[in-house]
Amino acid sequence: MGLDLKDFAYDGEGGFDLKDYPTNAHVDAGERERYELLTAGNTRRMAELQDKLYADAREGVVAMFQAMDAAGKDSTIKRVMSGLNPQGVSVYSFKQPSAEELSHDYLWRAVTHLPRRGHIELFNRSYYEDVLVVRVHQMQHGYAMPKRCVDEPEDEFFDRRYRQIRDFEEYLWENGYRVLKVFLNVGRDEQRKRFLERIDDESKNWKFSSGDLKERDLWPQYMDAYDKCIRKTASRHAPWYVVPADQKWFARWLVSEAMVRVLEACDPRYPEVSPEAKADLDRCRQELAGE
Amino acid sequence: MGLDLKDFAYDGEGGFDLKDYPTNAHVDAGERERYELLTAGNTRRMAELQDKLYADAREGVVAMFQAMDAAGKDSTIKRVMSGLNPQGVSVYSFKQPSAEELSHDYLWRAVTHLPRRGHIELFNRSYYEDVLVVRVHQMQHGYAMPKRCVDEPEDEFFDRRYRQIRDFEEYLWENGYRVLKVFLNVGRDEQRKRFLERIDDESKNWKFSSGDLKERDLWPQYMDAYDKCIRKTASRHAPWYVVPADQKWFARWLVSEAMVRVLEACDPRYPEVSPEAKADLDRCRQELAGE
Repeated sequence: MGLDLKDFAYDGEGGFDLKDYPTNAHVDAGERERYELLTAGNTRRMAELQDKLYADAREGVVAMFQAMDAAGKDSTIKRVMSGLNPQGVSVYSFKQPSAEELSHDYLWRAVTHLPRRGHIELFNRSYYEDVLVVRVHQMQHGYAMPKRCVDEPEDEFFDRRYRQIRDFEEYLWENGYRVLKVFLNVGRDEQRKRFLERIDDESKNWKFSSGDLKERDLWPQYMDAYDKCIRKTASRHAPWYVVPADQKWFARWLVSEAMVRVLEACDPRYPEVSPEAKADLDRCRQELAGE
Repeated sequence: MGLDLKDFAYDGEGGFDLKDYPTNAHVDAGERERYELLTAGNTRRMAELQDKLYADAREGVVAMFQAMDAAGKDSTIKRVMSGLNPQGVSVYSFKQPSAEELSHDYLWRAVTHLPRRGHIELFNRSYYEDVLVVRVHQMQHGYAMPKRCVDEPEDEFFDRRYRQIRDFEEYLWENGYRVLKVFLNVGRDEQRKRFLERIDDESKNWKFSSGDLKERDLWPQYMDAYDKCIRKTASRHAPWYVVPADQKWFARWLVSEAMVRVLEACDPRYPEVSPEAKADLDRCRQELAGE
């Protein structure tokens, strides 16, 4: 096969052009079952590592999923993450910001949903929306903010946000968090196919709204916003994974690989028991045995 | 008099040495009543500005108060801020961090208590404790964090935190917040006097604990930590005010001056009513009048 996670990673070294990253890796369909088995194995490995991460409680993990509609965010989370212990993992979905969220700085809702160290938080969409949908629709002009914060050319406004995001992710890294950023890179034709399925299959109608076509019309603008944002916010400690998403089973395997690697990098261990604590445990064993 | 707020401000320009800042400005005691009247006038002005800030909702204000014990944090907040509308102001006291707070990054509890824009938040102590009491007691060595975050010389660890704090305050500035940082600079002799009062006056006993003397013994270490932290975290948009606190009435006036200036700098205005909205109001007036 030869395909590896690192073929789809960008950590800020060298140039970046989204066009170089395929939406379809064209893996032979006969490989599907093997990849599904590998993914299932990775999920089991993730669960083992999660148990240690929880006990160790030194490092927290934030994994973010960005994508165009119908790229498979929800199903990837469902398929790859089911198997983790819900006690130590949760999902926060970034919907349209509430009035309370809009009245705060844009990273506020991410920070208020940061996991404790020892936990894993999955962001379904993320604060990256603030440099994606906001950029495409130029929403910054409608913000209730002082002039100094919004009254400037578009490039300056978003370059500042990229820098703020880099600072924030560096801060997280320096304070015991690991950030995993996944762009599920679906092709425009594949999106069309999936939209048609959502329209044709009544049980999927709820996933579709006519507004989705308006966003689809802005495809080139979105790709441009993703291209800029990935180039400017990838870093060694918070790389982007641009995952080809046309073959869902292959995308899921890549995401499971990325999760296993970030959890392994945490190197979580069950806390060591000191000689005194061991002696105390022995005493407790005797007391219980003699009851 | 000639004494002005700017004599006690440091915005990062030029050098800084805490020893240059008096704990007592030795204002003539006969001036006390005049200063108290000025302070009361400032509080009324703050209330007017607060009303506009709330209506405008473009800018939020975070005012932080740091000090040694008995310097007058609580009484300054009480005397200067009573008169503000509680609907738009609240106080968050940074006590010993809870288990939940300790399991997050150290800025987390500040961010979760950031005000909405249009509101004022007063921090009684703040995240600066994480470079003050933490530095004096070298608490970082007890943190449950990965080695990369704590395993290094003291200076590097705290220089990184100063940089993180500068980044954070710059981010706040760029996102519609103003930060006011006050160090109530009390003298060691004055603290001794106030501690004795707390011991002698039964109604003040609850404010004192024998542990306060242990911290008092670390006075030089605390002054050193304040000196470094102020030098490294003062900036144009988030200056430090080093307020002489031996004369409480003078300290309160300075704090009221600082609050008025930060609120004036916000330049809050009642939202403009558009011609269409005006016409609509006229229609409503007629409807109500004709009822």
